[in-house]
Amino acid sequence: MDNEFSSPLLHPLLAFRWIPTRFDDTYEATDDEIEALLEAARWAPSAGNSQPWAFIVGRRSDAIHERLVSHLAGSCASWAPGASVLIANLAHRWVEGTDWEHSEFSLYDLGQAVAHMTLQAEALRLSARQFRAFDRDGVAADFAVPSSWEVSTMVAIGRAAPRSAPASVDPAVRDRRAAQDIVWPVG
Amino acid sequence: MDNEFSSPLLHPLLAFRWIPTRFDDTYEATDDEIEALLEAARWAPSAGNSQPWAFIVGRRSDAIHERLVSHLAGSCASWAPGASVLIANLAHRWVEGTDWEHSEFSLYDLGQAVAHMTLQAEALRLSARQFRAFDRDGVAADFAVPSSWEVSTMVAIGRAAPRSAPASVDPAVRDRRAAQDIVWPVG
Repeated sequence: MDNEFSSPLLHPLLAFRWIPTRFDDTYEATDDEIEALLEAARWAPSAGNSQPWAFIVGRRSDAIHERLVSHLAGSCASWAPGASVLIANLAHRWVEGTDWEHSEFSLYDLGQAVAHMTLQAEALRLSARQFRAFDRDGVAADFAVPSSWEVSTMVAIGRAAPRSAPASVDPAVRDRRAAQDIVWPVG
Repeated sequence: MDNEFSSPLLHPLLAFRWIPTRFDDTYEATDDEIEALLEAARWAPSAGNSQPWAFIVGRRSDAIHERLVSHLAGSCASWAPGASVLIANLAHRWVEGTDWEHSEFSLYDLGQAVAHMTLQAEALRLSARQFRAFDRDGVAADFAVPSSWEVSTMVAIGRAAPRSAPASVDPAVRDRRAAQDIVWPVG
């Protein structure tokens, strides 16, 4: 098989990752899979090992999942509930009762943790799709998240449904800035 | 070998990652390795495919490296220059000439991109160490980074020096919040 990327050394978990448009709504993630996803996030690096993250984990058809689904915006409500797991990703933004940042890198580090979780999903032959189309305040109120924490993103993780590859999996329509454009031009 | 993590499914790139205290200052990264590191970042996911990242890439003993090294704080100046590559990680925070966010997720997504780069380093049997101990304004001025971009972090990537494993590689002193503590308590 041709590697369509410019680098033959790119690890397969990174090179062949794609985000499904729909999930197999019959696939149930195992306890071991969910544990591995959370362990991947838990062992991510963070500034000063601050670990500014927490996760609200709902498995399809459990009560937490039902509550998370109730806060989805229309654009996600069609596909996200079919994933095996819905996870709300929380960043520890502020020191409780103050306007001091808990960590300057809380969002950056949450991104790292979810990236590790995403690649662990790939390693389990599952797929992860992150999204923002949900009612942040609604989730915060529902799960008693204090203002020192931010409900940042959600991620749906499960098995891709058949024929759920987006057009962008086609190398001809893959869309990223050119390799030379992400390297800062140095005068 | 025992897997000291609670999840036997955790991918080896995640489970056995550790951050060296020193780099082998004789190891030169190949062009292919550097290309793979940047490709890993380039293909990371981002909100609306906004790709809010760019990288200043200095290879040990080239002119960019020398300029990056000149902005390191004392605590990093002892070990970071020995890595094969020093990279300054930039987030596209603001729309040029405005106070509108370029993306609400620019730091989160930069964190994801650097996480992908970190795991690509692991796949190449290299190590990545991120840090903040440098003069952000100095780097921005030196490399003509406009105020719409933020020089967020640096990452040093190279081969770990012999006996450069930190104490925290020892399972007995590994330090993370307990697995149950990163799951938000749901009432």
